[in-house]
Amino acid sequence: MRLALREAKKGIGRTSPNPCVGAVIVKNGEVVAKGYHKKAGTPHAEIHALRSAGSAASGATMYVTLEPCNHTGKTPPCSHAVAAAGIARVIVGMEDPNPLVDGTGVTYLRERNIEVVTGVLEDECRAINRPFLKHITTGLPWIVMKAGISLDGKLNYQQGESGWITGATSVETVHRLRNIHDAIMVGHHTVAIDNPSLTTRLTRGKGRDPIRIILDSALSLAPDARPFTVESPASTWVFCAETVEEKKVRQLQSLGVRVFPVSCDANGLVLHQVFRCLAENGVTSVLVEGGAALHGAILRERLYDYANLFLAPVFAGEGGIPLLSGYFASCKEDAVSLQTPTYTRTGDDVMISGCLHYPAKK
Amino acid sequence: MRLALREAKKGIGRTSPNPCVGAVIVKNGEVVAKGYHKKAGTPHAEIHALRSAGSAASGATMYVTLEPCNHTGKTPPCSHAVAAAGIARVIVGMEDPNPLVDGTGVTYLRERNIEVVTGVLEDECRAINRPFLKHITTGLPWIVMKAGISLDGKLNYQQGESGWITGATSVETVHRLRNIHDAIMVGHHTVAIDNPSLTTRLTRGKGRDPIRIILDSALSLAPDARPFTVESPASTWVFCAETVEEKKVRQLQSLGVRVFPVSCDANGLVLHQVFRCLAENGVTSVLVEGGAALHGAILRERLYDYANLFLAPVFAGEGGIPLLSGYFASCKEDAVSLQTPTYTRTGDDVMISGCLHYPAKK
Repeated sequence: MRLALREAKKGIGRTSPNPCVGAVIVKNGEVVAKGYHKKAGTPHAEIHALRSAGSAASGATMYVTLEPCNHTGKTPPCSHAVAAAGIARVIVGMEDPNPLVDGTGVTYLRERNIEVVTGVLEDECRAINRPFLKHITTGLPWIVMKAGISLDGKLNYQQGESGWITGATSVETVHRLRNIHDAIMVGHHTVAIDNPSLTTRLTRGKGRDPIRIILDSALSLAPDARPFTVESPASTWVFCAETVEEKKVRQLQSLGVRVFPVSCDANGLVLHQVFRCLAENGVTSVLVEGGAALHGAILRERLYDYANLFLAPVFAGEGGIPLLSGYFASCKEDAVSLQTPTYTRTGDDVMISGCLHYPAKK
Repeated sequence: MRLALREAKKGIGRTSPNPCVGAVIVKNGEVVAKGYHKKAGTPHAEIHALRSAGSAASGATMYVTLEPCNHTGKTPPCSHAVAAAGIARVIVGMEDPNPLVDGTGVTYLRERNIEVVTGVLEDECRAINRPFLKHITTGLPWIVMKAGISLDGKLNYQQGESGWITGATSVETVHRLRNIHDAIMVGHHTVAIDNPSLTTRLTRGKGRDPIRIILDSALSLAPDARPFTVESPASTWVFCAETVEEKKVRQLQSLGVRVFPVSCDANGLVLHQVFRCLAENGVTSVLVEGGAALHGAILRERLYDYANLFLAPVFAGEGGIPLLSGYFASCKEDAVSLQTPTYTRTGDDVMISGCLHYPAKK
């Protein structure tokens, strides 16, 4: 199963909205074939492995990180192919919570006298598919907070100059995060100040640009802002208020930008609606890069699932731009925290990562 | 020399205003004696080792982390004892910058045909004596910033409740820091809010309380505040403005508190004068525990040498008490940073440590 997991991980960030899955076929104690899911619409991991195994599949054991599908989507059901190839035993990492599968793959195999064991290295198999699992079970994407911060919790210095507060290794790590998330999101204020291109720039290897998402309730940004004009295979989506002038919407659309009007409340765009709309459009993961108002609002709405914070060992001082605005915690019991955080050195900085833990509502 | 360093470290935090020193005597490739300096006024490391070696010292090699002294202080010169015992070779970690020694120990030994090698593991030998070295060369103590902070750089939540933002392991580590610093310093505001006892409370082993230093320019604190009344072998010192009423001073003195009136400028007590006064009174290291105004002022005055920050994985939110007030950095080139920081996990928190690096003055 560890080998199957390693196979699955090759697909991370490339299979959306599908999960990443790895499969390994073992016969007489030897690995005879491996495979992983590369991209939605192409064959699943099981099919790659079966093709590679050929006749050796007969009587063999298959290790697969996720329950084989039992429905016809863009590709035929894997459960049928597994049975047809004569696999004798299937070891499953985790059952598929997809309502279209949900145990029917396992049932199908068992009905054909194939031995099935489930829940092997289940935690690890879950961990590689958090975006898929959240998307399929809640109708919302996996939402990740990303920020570079100083020791005193500032995004930037007093003069709010454009650029990174963190070092080169952290910046490279951020580009690797962009590479594996479906979309990247910023507020209009960040675009107005930094005018970022929001693309993936890896020092080694070819990256894939995430969809660029900008929240701009009044469509206040100039049409020549970099996220609208940058050369990139990925597109730019803008969320605005429903009340925005039709003319402004059409101007952006003429640049190839997708515009999504959503409801507003006293705090601006209704964030829950924004993320639900993203999920409906196939986005399973969003890396939110700020600024302070957006981070504060998403935290206040309890929408963040995970955080990757890059802390630089500098003091930005009073008057620097804070990490959060509009989020308050009156005492420890009120405060949002990270659960079992990990600390990873990135150059002179440290990356702080973990799932968000929200306090019980009073 | 590594063994001598290990000996020296046994004295950390106990030898002030003396350095910690370790000595090892080796004869025919075997360690025949070890020793370390335990407390000012008691025998130096070399003497302990020589006594333990007895006649075996004759013709042996001594490894010592710091140049043997050559003057009569509270104890007679070690250089004479080393020569008298017939030591043939002395390996010295670092020369003593104390103007009373400053190479004369080495010279004395060489004049007596003892072979002397200096600068062995010098960086490590320096590192264990940073308070002593700063004190003896500058007339100021080694000044350390200590704070527990949230991910968004706050010392506490909005309601400013008393207590720690960090977890139990960080708190224990702070008590171990208190145990090895000569003094602990807080501002009067911190005393007014937290009313801390400022003592060393270790879960294992017996701690030593540092001198409690409170900056209170107007002597505004109530005489029953805990730092004035706590049962402790260490005393409490208060720095106030020279203009403060004599009556208030005498009231505190009657509680056994030492009161130091110093000059004020527009920002309050002149910090340079405070620290110089501490150094003159034998304090070689100060752990400053805040709050925001004190941290900001010491940073602005470029007086901090080192920082130990304990970061808890929580978001304290807007309205929380900031780490720093009164310190500003308009851009990266203006910002104070930590040089080659270290990150050490303490429970769910991370301890961030490093020497302060100040930007060039414009």
